[in-house]
Amino acid sequence: MKQIQGGITAAKGFEAASTAAGIKYKDRTDMALIYSQAPCEAAGTFTTNVVKAAPVKWDRQVVDSGVKVQAVVVNSGIANACTGEEGFGYCKNTAEAAARALGVAAEGVVMGSTGVIGMQLPIDRLTAGIKVLAENKNGSLENGTEAAKAIMTTDTCEKEIAVSIEAGGKTVIIGGMAKGSGMIHPNMCTMLAFITTDAVISKETLQRTLSEDVKDTYNMISVDGDTSTNDTVLLLANGLAENPEIIYGSEAYTEFVRALHTVNEYLAKKIAGDGEGATALFEVKAAGCESEEQARVLAKAVVCSNLTKTAIAGHDANWGRILCAMGYSGAKFDPEKVDLFFESKAGRIQIIENGTAVSYSEEEATRILSEAEITAVVDVKMGEKQAVAWGCDLTHGYIDINADYRS
Amino acid sequence: MKQIQGGITAAKGFEAASTAAGIKYKDRTDMALIYSQAPCEAAGTFTTNVVKAAPVKWDRQVVDSGVKVQAVVVNSGIANACTGEEGFGYCKNTAEAAARALGVAAEGVVMGSTGVIGMQLPIDRLTAGIKVLAENKNGSLENGTEAAKAIMTTDTCEKEIAVSIEAGGKTVIIGGMAKGSGMIHPNMCTMLAFITTDAVISKETLQRTLSEDVKDTYNMISVDGDTSTNDTVLLLANGLAENPEIIYGSEAYTEFVRALHTVNEYLAKKIAGDGEGATALFEVKAAGCESEEQARVLAKAVVCSNLTKTAIAGHDANWGRILCAMGYSGAKFDPEKVDLFFESKAGRIQIIENGTAVSYSEEEATRILSEAEITAVVDVKMGEKQAVAWGCDLTHGYIDINADYRS
Repeated sequence: MKQIQGGITAAKGFEAASTAAGIKYKDRTDMALIYSQAPCEAAGTFTTNVVKAAPVKWDRQVVDSGVKVQAVVVNSGIANACTGEEGFGYCKNTAEAAARALGVAAEGVVMGSTGVIGMQLPIDRLTAGIKVLAENKNGSLENGTEAAKAIMTTDTCEKEIAVSIEAGGKTVIIGGMAKGSGMIHPNMCTMLAFITTDAVISKETLQRTLSEDVKDTYNMISVDGDTSTNDTVLLLANGLAENPEIIYGSEAYTEFVRALHTVNEYLAKKIAGDGEGATALFEVKAAGCESEEQARVLAKAVVCSNLTKTAIAGHDANWGRILCAMGYSGAKFDPEKVDLFFESKAGRIQIIENGTAVSYSEEEATRILSEAEITAVVDVKMGEKQAVAWGCDLTHGYIDINADYRS
Repeated sequence: MKQIQGGITAAKGFEAASTAAGIKYKDRTDMALIYSQAPCEAAGTFTTNVVKAAPVKWDRQVVDSGVKVQAVVVNSGIANACTGEEGFGYCKNTAEAAARALGVAAEGVVMGSTGVIGMQLPIDRLTAGIKVLAENKNGSLENGTEAAKAIMTTDTCEKEIAVSIEAGGKTVIIGGMAKGSGMIHPNMCTMLAFITTDAVISKETLQRTLSEDVKDTYNMISVDGDTSTNDTVLLLANGLAENPEIIYGSEAYTEFVRALHTVNEYLAKKIAGDGEGATALFEVKAAGCESEEQARVLAKAVVCSNLTKTAIAGHDANWGRILCAMGYSGAKFDPEKVDLFFESKAGRIQIIENGTAVSYSEEEATRILSEAEITAVVDVKMGEKQAVAWGCDLTHGYIDINADYRS
């Protein structure tokens, strides 16, 4: 496997476009299109929030029906959530407009929305935007990058990646883009992520692979503990790489899983590190666990704690807050056996041994915690399992963004 | 029942004192004593955090043993949590020092600590402080208020209340004090709260009443979602009111429950409204629920959401975030049946009817949301049960306090 240039247009036969449709933002692009020259097997994972946005309901239907997908229409600015029947009707309008403009089946058009909850989409601007997208689409890497920019809301940078693997003598590419900065606390899924691949692979294998991998990637990030109404990960495979079909359990499958994981982990970490107002990516490894579930619960509790997040913002080795968060996580462990280390590119330092502080240099700890990527390693010494979660520090910026996001 | 002046010294036979022992803070009091002229029946509820502070372990033992309690020693500045055997040893030292200074049994001394986790107590200063406390204790209301001040950490004001009821021709008084501002997300308990009463009541009835009432008071507040290692509520009854014993289920019992609830709810709301950096008390009523449990889960999810809290800080009727938080709470409901209202002393306004926005004035909503006490009422129209939770807005102040709390 190797990382290559590009994002959603890196795989064979995928095209993209973006446009400023005036959905809500001014002076910036706010719609993106992903188009595949060949119909795709589609896999998806969606928010577990009881309140599901209209596009989530639409996409879920499409993915569950087994129909092939050929286009994805995404808008930023308005989430199309809590919009009742009118909002769901706009999904149908969107699919029909895309079908007309692209000459594809409306049943095979999926979509994603992100932005303010409760506001109705300006459907005329949306359908006008779709025409522009259809006219401007192409397979250039630039168009992929521009699409990744168009789906941003409070994100500070676009998030895209592509990797290639060899499968049965053919090159298979997986590329992806994502957006997400606030309302990030995915559960079985995350904010918007769109992954494209030219692999030949069955829908069942595709879905199984995706569902497994989100547990260790998008589901392990948290910016603010708020699980969105719109969380969506879509994975499209158009088969244009012409590789021998990737069969579950085969060597090629192992390689594909590894490549997909690389893409998903990269995008998940990008989302966590670009959390609203964040100045640091905060990684937590829970090690020495009895089960993966226990490790995930411990790692996520620490990464979700407002108090550990503000301590990271202050470059403060406030380890008591980390033990405290583990303590209320619901996972069982013996506090008097816990070891804790902080790591960053500035070094590694042990802070706790068997539940109490070792003699360490606060100065050295602060130096390590002042980097842009920080890792806390907690070892509960109960077994061999581990998990990693990603979050970010909690700063004034988060308050600024969210105290007046709607206005 | 009527509210009267004072706090922990309002009930007959209770005395208090405070002193600046130099535990961690400078130029302020940081130790408090509650002393009862007669031994007390004691009830308590404690943190559910797996990581329990040493004084929590100590108090739990005392309360469970059934021994009568005659003194409470509290320090602020250092939590005595994650301090191993050394820290637990200091609890014994504290009890012994108090026993010597007050002429009471060491087994009947309980304690509370709040402050930084992981640091050892300066036990010599603590025991020296106990002598000063013992010398200066008296039953004046002023000493009660000064004790409530001494237990503060990042609190901006002391929290105390007292009420009186008539029971069998005698006046029974319940008074209390509490502290709490950050790391507030109690579960079966809260930050430090100490309630004193001169009622004649059995230990069993006292514990049962307290355990029931914390569910609707301290357990329904959240400042930051972090359940502390030190959460403690202690309720002491010394019997000096000489009322006929308050028997479970009697008329006097009903009155006692109502009075205790008034004290607990008042202190809980004071803690929520004094959340670190808070500018508003945020109350959430979940109505029309099938069960109290469902109502509690819904109300707490809204009050805990960083996104609703920042919206409140911005006086923004961002109702989508409220529906979103209800949606990921884990409680079942139909989003398309939800009504939402905002209330404050500036008025009441309906925002959502059956899951979508009604036509309302944003200006009017902002006016209502600009008060110091704000209520959101969500009605899921499934039944008759309801619950209320309390929190606060999330502001720059929270970040300022917590990014450098240790230093």
